[in-house]
Amino acid sequence: MGKTIGILGGMGPLATVDIFHKIVSLTDANIDQDHIHIIIDNNPGIPDRLNYIFRDGESPEKALIQSAIKLECMGADVLIMPCNTAHYFYDAIKKYIGIDFINMVDETAKEIRATLPSCKKIGLLASKGTYSTGVYDKIFAPYDIEVIKPDSEGRQDLAELILAVKRGQTTYDLTNIYKVLDQLKKKNAEMMVLGCTELPIAFKVFNIQEKYIDSTTVLACSAIKYCGKKVRKAI
Amino acid sequence: MGKTIGILGGMGPLATVDIFHKIVSLTDANIDQDHIHIIIDNNPGIPDRLNYIFRDGESPEKALIQSAIKLECMGADVLIMPCNTAHYFYDAIKKYIGIDFINMVDETAKEIRATLPSCKKIGLLASKGTYSTGVYDKIFAPYDIEVIKPDSEGRQDLAELILAVKRGQTTYDLTNIYKVLDQLKKKNAEMMVLGCTELPIAFKVFNIQEKYIDSTTVLACSAIKYCGKKVRKAI
Repeated sequence: MGKTIGILGGMGPLATVDIFHKIVSLTDANIDQDHIHIIIDNNPGIPDRLNYIFRDGESPEKALIQSAIKLECMGADVLIMPCNTAHYFYDAIKKYIGIDFINMVDETAKEIRATLPSCKKIGLLASKGTYSTGVYDKIFAPYDIEVIKPDSEGRQDLAELILAVKRGQTTYDLTNIYKVLDQLKKKNAEMMVLGCTELPIAFKVFNIQEKYIDSTTVLACSAIKYCGKKVRKAI
Repeated sequence: MGKTIGILGGMGPLATVDIFHKIVSLTDANIDQDHIHIIIDNNPGIPDRLNYIFRDGESPEKALIQSAIKLECMGADVLIMPCNTAHYFYDAIKKYIGIDFINMVDETAKEIRATLPSCKKIGLLASKGTYSTGVYDKIFAPYDIEVIKPDSEGRQDLAELILAVKRGQTTYDLTNIYKVLDQLKKKNAEMMVLGCTELPIAFKVFNIQEKYIDSTTVLACSAIKYCGKKVRKAI
């Protein structure tokens, strides 16, 4: 029996579709039975992370823990959570489960170290919550990678792009997004990191021209390897 | 609290990604919390349906029932199964669960009646198992819709197309597929029905030019409406 991946999803639903698609497409498989057993709890009702971080709204912690426990009960051998902002609650969730829980942000740091050994500064594209809670800063520091962030105007531009994905928009005026990328390059960012799981969707759907490392793809590949399967060439 | 959809998936995994994507994209929603709670058991280890139907292989019935029960235990209010061939086991599965189970083939018949009221003959594109078990014929008969099928050579051509999707191919020589479509039109099929959940992926990825009704999209829309949500314009 192969290992089963549990996906703590719904934050947002399209980002959960995206990692599911990436795991299936990147698994080196020829028939159904070669693929990995995946259980998904796509629960978009988990209270809004930013509303808690910035506006004293309901905490998502309880709902996250419930979903994690449910996935373990369903038979998951390992947990993944395709939402960077929610990794602020990673330690709280981990305490409640007896299975492994792959950390998306830590895997992204390892991937940068492996593929760009001399990289010192990355440009982080993320939600306001991921910036302000410092999830990336804390985890990237031991890898000696500095996290370069946009100013508050740039953060707002990215927040609007993220909301456009959540609304299901198919076109977008990218003027301000290219300004954010320029700003990060001027601060000597050597590589952009998509540190929000809505962003690879935005980059694809709106055809944003920029090289980047995508935390969703990194997490998908880590999960495939954890299950003892081979990763196919990148999509 | 909204209703929760349970997806009995893995047959194949890309078809499960496809219906998940269609449900999310077609739900009229602006923020995460507007979306539907979906629980997915993507179990590609379910024994091969065709191997059982044609070659006396292990029956998938037990694994299908286990997955359905698991989804009910996880909190699903309604079950859907994005695999037409597996609908051969629909009645057997239904006996074991206390929740509703939307029948993909029946929903497709209803959709044809609603959108093409005078349609008498459809061309069925499906797996060999769906043809030989007569899943569509039985369900379409009360709707007074005749199911036109390709000859054995045409069925083999479609079987190879389906396997190409399962292998993750991105290019395909479509000569024989267009011959199958011509054959069905010569037999007076008024509309093609994609009666295998790998086929909408094939039609999109390989860019097959033909009008059709897609059973996956029909099922996705039925599930959205079951949950009391509005369907967005087609993708």
